[in-house]
Parts: sequence; C-alpha cells; structure tokens
Amino acid sequence: MPTLTPALSPNDLLAQLNWRYATKQFDPTKLIADDVWETLEDSLVLTPSSYGLQPWLFLIIKSSEIKEQLKPLSWNQNQITDCSHLVVFAIKKNLTVADVDRFIESTATTRGDSVESLSGYRNMIVSDVVYGPRSFNVNEWAARQAYIALGNFMTSAAVIGVDTCPLEGIDPAGYDKVLELQPEGFATVVACAAGYRSDDDKYADLKKVRYPKSDVLRVV
Amino acid sequence: MPTLTPALSPNDLLAQLNWRYATKQFDPTKLIADDVWETLEDSLVLTPSSYGLQPWLFLIIKSSEIKEQLKPLSWNQNQITDCSHLVVFAIKKNLTVADVDRFIESTATTRGDSVESLSGYRNMIVSDVVYGPRSFNVNEWAARQAYIALGNFMTSAAVIGVDTCPLEGIDPAGYDKVLELQPEGFATVVACAAGYRSDDDKYADLKKVRYPKSDVLRVV
Repeated sequence: MPTLTPALSPNDLLAQLNWRYATKQFDPTKLIADDVWETLEDSLVLTPSSYGLQPWLFLIIKSSEIKEQLKPLSWNQNQITDCSHLVVFAIKKNLTVADVDRFIESTATTRGDSVESLSGYRNMIVSDVVYGPRSFNVNEWAARQAYIALGNFMTSAAVIGVDTCPLEGIDPAGYDKVLELQPEGFATVVACAAGYRSDDDKYADLKKVRYPKSDVLRVV
Repeated sequence: MPTLTPALSPNDLLAQLNWRYATKQFDPTKLIADDVWETLEDSLVLTPSSYGLQPWLFLIIKSSEIKEQLKPLSWNQNQITDCSHLVVFAIKKNLTVADVDRFIESTATTRGDSVESLSGYRNMIVSDVVYGPRSFNVNEWAARQAYIALGNFMTSAAVIGVDTCPLEGIDPAGYDKVLELQPEGFATVVACAAGYRSDDDKYADLKKVRYPKSDVLRVV
C-alpha cells in the first residue's frame, strides 16, 4: 500500500519540528481532545521495536491525585500536574522465554500463521534476548526500545500540533512504587508530558539550541 | 509561535504510521531526492535530547564501497546496500566536562547569553552526567538519546512518505572500525536504512503485529 501523496510535505514537517520544544509551562485549562489523544495512544502502540517484541507498558496518567504523588518524584516540575496527559514509559524487566512465546503467538494469530512455522524466528530471538548477547543487558536493551517510543511519541505529537516535554529527571523507583509496577515486573524508564503550551511560557520563544549540522552529521 | 492549524490531522498521522513498516526490500533504483533528504537530516539534528546535550554523531552512508563493507557486519541484510541512504547512529563516549562546556557555549552563542549566566545549568549537568548518577552508565544514557533520534527519524520519514528499516542486528565494533569512529571517541549504537520499498517486498502487505492497546497501555 504505497502512498503516492505523502501526508506531509518536507517543509511542513520541518515547520512542526521547529515549532516543538520542551514545554516548560502547560496551560492546565487546555486538554487534549479525546479523538486526538486516541491517535497519540495509537502512535505509542504502533512504535516499532527490535524483533517486534514491544517490551513495554505505557501508563497514561490522568488522575490528579496520582500526578500530585509523582510531582515530588520529578523535581516538583509543574509539567507533571499542569499537562493534559502524562505518559510514563515502563519496560518489562528481565524478558523470559514466556515473553517471546507470547509475542510469537500474537504474530501467528495476527497473520494466520502457525506457531510452528515461526519456530526459527522464535529460537533466534530466544537465543539472543533471553540467553545470548542481549540477555547480558536486556533491561537496557528494553529501555532503548522505550526511547524509540518516546521519540516517536514526541514527533507524532508535534506533527499534529500537540506540545510535549520529555522528563528524564524523575525517580524511576519512586514512580514504580506509586504506580505499583514492580509486582508485575515492569520498571519506569522515562516520562513525557503532553498538552498545550501556556501563552506565558517564555521558553517557547527561545531560540532552539542545536549544534550545526556539520558538527553532528557526516556524509560518508 | 502557536500553530493554530496543525500540519497533519490525527487520521492522516495514523495512516502514515500504519503505512510504515520495517522495509525488508528497498528498490535500489529509487533514491531519496536531495530536498527530501535534507529535511530528514534536519529532523536528525533537531532531535530533542536530555539537557539538550546531543551526545551523538549521525553518519550518512552514501558510498557504495562503505555499504559493501558494512553489509557483512549486518548479517548480510540487503537493506544496507539497496537503500538510498543508510544512517548510522553513534554516541560520543564517556562525556567529559569539555563536552558540557561546549554545549553551554553553543547555548550562550545561540541565545545571546553569557556563559556565566548559564553556570548554574552547567554545574547541574556536570554534577549529573560527568560526576553524578548518570556518569555510572553515561554511554547507555547517551545510547538512549540516540534511540530518541532513531524514533524521531523513523516517524519523520513515515509522515513524508519515506520508508525505513531500523537495524539493530549489526556489529557495532565492526562498524566503528570501518567508519574510523574510535579515535574520535564515538561508538556505533544502531543503524537505520531509508529509501523506498520495492514493489516485490512481500513484507509490505503483512499485517502489522502489535499487542492490543489494552495489553500495553494503561490509563491511571
């Protein structure tokens, strides 16, 4: 299914990427409409991941009470409570053979294949992620996948005009407690606030700081 | 600078995210036009990063000779040689005070501030990334930032109708040698092929495998 007419022109993409910034002050009265938010949820779910394993859980924090509990675990940043929706990106820790099998079953069901026909692929994943090279640092590997989701989420939001602020300055273990993630084997890695910038956010008008292309990009 | 008219409707975004897939077979005759590619380079440069530190180098591999050298270091995947542009995401290893100072100078120059007025911010970064909590795993922290770039890149490409294939199955140390990254303190973390899908790529028509939203997303 080719798109002969791309949905966005390169110039419009660039305008949106330049429009986005790490929003410091959200307008707490501006909520993301349900249909817009649903699309952003879909963008999270559609995030690509290595092998397709999706080693993650996305927590959408709408509860004011929970936001208040997370705020002191986030350097008291106002974005936590002022944003429309807060996303917490958690990983499934210590992936096991059962996780791989669950994914293989999901693949078989979705595509109408047999689990047996996918055994080669299954064994390749197991021998890498569960017992092989990636197993030595499997939680970091999973965290990297969650960061693909973070990047995808921020760009998806930007192109439809939704503001975001990535939040690495959080206490992941504290988040895990508030969100009761540990018993299920999940662990917080990063968060991202979404909503709409306040008219008063002076950061919106600051010039974006990026190294010149010649410093960070090399054509070989 | 608010955008009252977002560049893309939620439905169009969703269509593009569903259109994208990990392209297995690129059409080697279809090259990304220069102006389109330039925008994708810009999207890489504009990627947000923690503190704004941009601990990365993006290598754009256009040389057929280099692609041929990288292919055996990438499970001989055809995407390496058939794609239009191959991006290698490298991190700056073991960030130092000099890296932070370089960023602070860049910020001061861009925004017309003095370096002195940014000393509080500078010291906060140094005490975290160089000497503090993040310093214990600073290369993994940098790798996570590179994965934000990967996510941003794939989504940016998708919304303008460019195909990509993320490539984690590579030999990073082998890449470092071919690209002569080590002497400069860079290290490969992941790659991504970009171009246009071949009409023959049967993977384009396979149903996307994702867990149901209810399995990977929880509203709190």
